[in-house]
This record gives sequence, C-alpha cells and structure tokens, in this order.
Amino acid sequence: MTETQILLIEDDPLDMELALFALQENKIANHVQVARDGEEALDFLFCQGKYSSRDKAHQPHLVLLDLKIPKIDGLEVLRQLKNNEYTKAIPVVILTSSVLDRDVICGYKLGANSYIQKPVDFKQFKEIIKELGLYWLKFNRGVPEDAFT
Amino acid sequence: MTETQILLIEDDPLDMELALFALQENKIANHVQVARDGEEALDFLFCQGKYSSRDKAHQPHLVLLDLKIPKIDGLEVLRQLKNNEYTKAIPVVILTSSVLDRDVICGYKLGANSYIQKPVDFKQFKEIIKELGLYWLKFNRGVPEDAFT
Repeated sequence: MTETQILLIEDDPLDMELALFALQENKIANHVQVARDGEEALDFLFCQGKYSSRDKAHQPHLVLLDLKIPKIDGLEVLRQLKNNEYTKAIPVVILTSSVLDRDVICGYKLGANSYIQKPVDFKQFKEIIKELGLYWLKFNRGVPEDAFT
Repeated sequence: MTETQILLIEDDPLDMELALFALQENKIANHVQVARDGEEALDFLFCQGKYSSRDKAHQPHLVLLDLKIPKIDGLEVLRQLKNNEYTKAIPVVILTSSVLDRDVICGYKLGANSYIQKPVDFKQFKEIIKELGLYWLKFNRGVPEDAFT
C-alpha cells in the first residue's frame, strides 16, 4: 500500500493543480491524497464511507486544509479532526485565501498547527507550498504510527 | 515597549546562546525573551510574579519550548498554555533532544504546533533555528492581538 504523505483538502481545481505541481517539482511529496469537500476529507481520515476499507493506522503526515470547501466547511473538519483521539495529533496547516482575523483566531483555537494565507501570485504560491512542504515533511518530527492505534 | 517576537524556554546555556545567535545572524528576530525554567515561562505568559506589570495583550508570536527544564517541566508548561483561552492560540514549537515517541505523541496531543528534534551538530542546529524562524515569523500568519484580550 502506498503511504499518503499529505492530505490536500481543496475544491479549487487550479489551486489543487498548482499545489500538486509544486510538491512534485520540489520532490517534497509524491503521494498526495486529494479530498474535494469536507465530507470526503472526514471519510478519508476516519476510514468511513468509500474509505471504510482503509487502514486507520496509516494517517497522512500533514493535512493542508482550505477553509471554504463544500458540504462540510474547513473549520468543522478541523474541529472533528482535533476532537478525535486517533487523529488529533496529525499536523493541520490551514491554507486559505481568508484574511479574516476571526478565521485565524478560530483556526488556532480549534487546534490548527499553522495558518498560511494563499498568495494570489502563482510564483509566490509555489514558493509557499515548497517552504511549508519542506518544513513539515523534512524538519518537523511527524507523529509516530503508535498514535493512531 | 519592545514587542517580544519569540519566547525561548531553555535552560541549557549553550543551546540558548546558539539559538539567539542563529536568530540574530539571520535577521529573524531581535526581540527574544528567555525563560530558564517552566515557572518563569508561565509567569511571563500569564503576566504574574515578576511579570505582573506586563501587558497580556502583547504575547510572543512564537514559543520555542525545551521539554527538560527545571521547576515545571515542558509538557506541563504546554498543557497550561494550551488550556488557557488567552494563550492557547500562540504557536508552540517543541525544540528538544528527546527522541521518545511518547514525548512526540504527548506533545501533539497537548496541542504543540510542531516538534523539532535538536541536532547535536552545531551547523545543523543553526540551520534548524533559521528554518523554523523563517517559517513561523515570515510565512505563518501570526495570531491577531484581539485573541489575547
């Protein structure tokens, strides 16, 4: 089974393509799972619905979370993920175009590990993805798999 | 009043000097407050004891937390910081020599934003400090001051 390094929760096709391109170009992550809405993201993380046969001991090393996503919004996904003993230790980086102070404060209070504002410029977006990928997958100590069992 | 960018909680004099040197050399942070034990760290964050005249609306943008510190250990400092509505949103990076899985898991479950293992090599230590300083003070969106009032 291929290990998922990053769960990218993003519904905008262009942002998704850009993020995947930047991660692969910089050899940061080849195994990225994409969830296009909040429901699919929670199904993946909690191994339910169409992911019911997935092994919950294999969790992504990093979740990149957009806030404005269909079905279940990003902050609710974050709340459920950080309130569950199996998934609360997974690092979650909010990656969003929202500049609202209340989203930043609420994100941190719900347990987001980091909050990054999406730049509108293509080159800056690629640079941000590279920096955050390097930080979280190369420098940061990931969660040992024992945490998920 | 000078704004504190980083609260460095570290009792080892050499590690402290190295961290301050790397932060200044790379022009990441000039205003670093050092706490040499857990009690002093909590007094600073909660504006009590010798810091009782400090304004709690001015919190550091980042806390760098060693785990093995005198008086009150690092995980207990983390627990108190993340259980308090005023301070829970402040990003905390554990920076420690501990490689124990239980410290990593416990750190994340208590709400640490990131966990970095201290390299023993001097050059690698400087590089890590530079990378984490850049990530948290340049790329990451900090907590708006509204969160602390």
